Amino acid sequence: MMDTINIAIIGMGTVGQGVAIMLLKQSELLEKQLGYKLVLKRILEKFYDKQLDFDRGGIPISGEWQDVLGDPDIHIVVETMGGIEPAKTFITEALRSGKHVVTANKDLLALHGQELFAVAKESGADLYFEASVGGAIPILYSLRQNLTSDPIQEVMGIVNGTTNYILTRMADEGGDFSAILADAQRLGYAEVNPASDVEGTDSGRKAAILSSLAFHSQVTLDDVYIQGITEITREDILFAEQMGYAIKLLAICKETAGGIEARVHPTLLPKSHPLSTVQDTFNAIFVKGGHFGEVMLYGRGAGRFPTACAILGDVAEIVRNIRFNCSGRLTRVYGREKGIVPIDDVETRFFMRLLLADMPGVLAVVTKALSKYNVSLETVNQMDLIEGDAELVFVTHLVREGDMRRALEEIGRLEVTKKIVTVLRVEGV
Amino acid sequence: MMDTINIAIIGMGTVGQGVAIMLLKQSELLEKQLGYKLVLKRILEKFYDKQLDFDRGGIPISGEWQDVLGDPDIHIVVETMGGIEPAKTFITEALRSGKHVVTANKDLLALHGQELFAVAKESGADLYFEASVGGAIPILYSLRQNLTSDPIQEVMGIVNGTTNYILTRMADEGGDFSAILADAQRLGYAEVNPASDVEGTDSGRKAAILSSLAFHSQVTLDDVYIQGITEITREDILFAEQMGYAIKLLAICKETAGGIEARVHPTLLPKSHPLSTVQDTFNAIFVKGGHFGEVMLYGRGAGRFPTACAILGDVAEIVRNIRFNCSGRLTRVYGREKGIVPIDDVETRFFMRLLLADMPGVLAVVTKALSKYNVSLETVNQMDLIEGDAELVFVTHLVREGDMRRALEEIGRLEVTKKIVTVLRVEGV
Repeated sequence: MMDTINIAIIGMGTVGQGVAIMLLKQSELLEKQLGYKLVLKRILEKFYDKQLDFDRGGIPISGEWQDVLGDPDIHIVVETMGGIEPAKTFITEALRSGKHVVTANKDLLALHGQELFAVAKESGADLYFEASVGGAIPILYSLRQNLTSDPIQEVMGIVNGTTNYILTRMADEGGDFSAILADAQRLGYAEVNPASDVEGTDSGRKAAILSSLAFHSQVTLDDVYIQGITEITREDILFAEQMGYAIKLLAICKETAGGIEARVHPTLLPKSHPLSTVQDTFNAIFVKGGHFGEVMLYGRGAGRFPTACAILGDVAEIVRNIRFNCSGRLTRVYGREKGIVPIDDVETRFFMRLLLADMPGVLAVVTKALSKYNVSLETVNQMDLIEGDAELVFVTHLVREGDMRRALEEIGRLEVTKKIVTVLRVEGV
Repeated sequence: MMDTINIAIIGMGTVGQGVAIMLLKQSELLEKQLGYKLVLKRILEKFYDKQLDFDRGGIPISGEWQDVLGDPDIHIVVETMGGIEPAKTFITEALRSGKHVVTANKDLLALHGQELFAVAKESGADLYFEASVGGAIPILYSLRQNLTSDPIQEVMGIVNGTTNYILTRMADEGGDFSAILADAQRLGYAEVNPASDVEGTDSGRKAAILSSLAFHSQVTLDDVYIQGITEITREDILFAEQMGYAIKLLAICKETAGGIEARVHPTLLPKSHPLSTVQDTFNAIFVKGGHFGEVMLYGRGAGRFPTACAILGDVAEIVRNIRFNCSGRLTRVYGREKGIVPIDDVETRFFMRLLLADMPGVLAVVTKALSKYNVSLETVNQMDLIEGDAELVFVTHLVREGDMRRALEEIGRLEVTKKIVTVLRVEGV
């Protein structure tokens, strides 16, 4: 029996170095648990003369992928480069040569996951990716293993720490989006280019991965309806709060009679919903099933060491599989069995702020216009008068998105309407 | 390749029937996912003519264990009888005969878990027990798999739904323990004999299981310090609340330099701690590691179908292992590698309500008595005067439990002390 598992890390960014640091530090713990010595044997890094945050001792570092691929002693490749290419080629080649792969690459999985799973299946190698969604939170294992006995109805997640941090501060301080974003950038909680976070793309990638696993059918980034938080104002948050809701950027995945819903948008959640209490950069994923009820998993969704822990958890699972000669036991390739519900056919509740002329009968006019498109109201609140106009805040009952859109077009044409201030969706009621 | 997995359920209580109902109902889903048809082949029930909640069709029911044990076609035995014997004998015999076992039996695991794991290891069969702690919450898999790459520092859990329901209602309504317990019994949230819930034994069993898995060392029920919630009053909850704390019954497992701490007691948690927001009958387990940070898993800790889902999740894992011929891949037997910290050596903060004579200098007298035993105060709040006496509420800094006990003995002897009203521990600060 071999007694050593050799690992290569490809990509020495924050996370890749975190994995290296932990592998070196925890080798005794891991050996005791797994029965193998885990050895960091090779490092691939384009900028191979880069200054590292740890002492790599004699571990060779190279800018050439062939040095890793061509080493038959490497059992596991940890991919922490990110991006589509060359990561996709490297992972494919590693799997084809029988090496197991751990990746945190959500960009790649959200677009080409099924293709890579198919390569893994064909080669019999493991492809694990727990760190791609929710960092240290064991959500993907849960969806792949324990929660498989009951059809999953819904997965809703706060899966982007940057936007949750910004929304939390906007709620706590009553601050504006752009000011808090700037401060978050200064503090390192937001990237210099924050687009993929604040515009929702990052959450969209995770929604694609979560939907595919939860509903056993291929969902890619292109299938996900995405709206970010850049338009959210302090007044939206304040008024939502007054009505008992928090605003969170959610990845929402549902299986309905019409197919799979996969969408990302700012969402009003009642304060009694467990996701509404998730603060700062924390992530949480809420899963609903007909029999197990509600499960929520909460934790650090990003950061060097939380992500490195998820990656090493995958490495440990792969080692257990090597030991018991059962690599591939969790590999599943999904076809496109289930359709995606077009956003127009999605049913939700809406929260809507309208600035209306302050005159008698105005509410009747609006209600009538809404009802023409099957939009009925659950609550109406009159907020302050703003220079002679009345701001009204509505929450609707369930309505088809397409109907709501047409109702809003009509509302926009009404003489009493000064402005459609905000329209947001409500979930978790 | 065989295409059918035969299952026997032993014990037709609420949960056993739930497993049967789900097995029959979800057979198509499970077959599609697992590649095997799962067949409920036999039922063991002492009262074999009992009226069941489902139509068992032609599935034979028997009161004789030999009918199950002696059937070589049974691959998996689901034990839902509860109690120590005959469950222990049946599980042992099933494992020895090469049958895999799923159990929800926390009583048994908390006392004899390591012995049963050793039998499983010897026989090469799987013994899975996710449902024994936290119902549908995938906490045990997380401790056995993903979170293994980082030494776990602490596991704290609300693992008993009955007591969390009672404490939630006491906090919401300001009601008394006994009245709310009686109402909970009427509503079916508490047993007719509620002792093992309200006195903390049930949580203690779960603390033993969690500690063993988290720290890779055998911890049994007898090692766990246990204190229930029967003495908690509405004033305790109110005063704690005023100081920013919720009171929860926690199973607390820590690894310290001195060994393993395993204890169950009512605990003050700051309102900012994620466990403090867990309401009603929900359970949640909070895990802390040096690198992954904080992870919390939340969900239904009990009930027919949440528990049945956890059991079927185990069944599914066992089937994957059968398919890949890797049964036993998670089996670990822990020796008693690490000592248990005696409760006197545990360090915590304390919350303490004292009724003192309302005279000048009384606080100085108390503070001096406390400081003799290294008890220093973090906060002191004066509450209302009660018939001429002053009620003071203290929160201490960290102190050894033994020192605190001796300090309290001295406080009790002081002339100014009318009553030591309440002493509770504080965590999560």
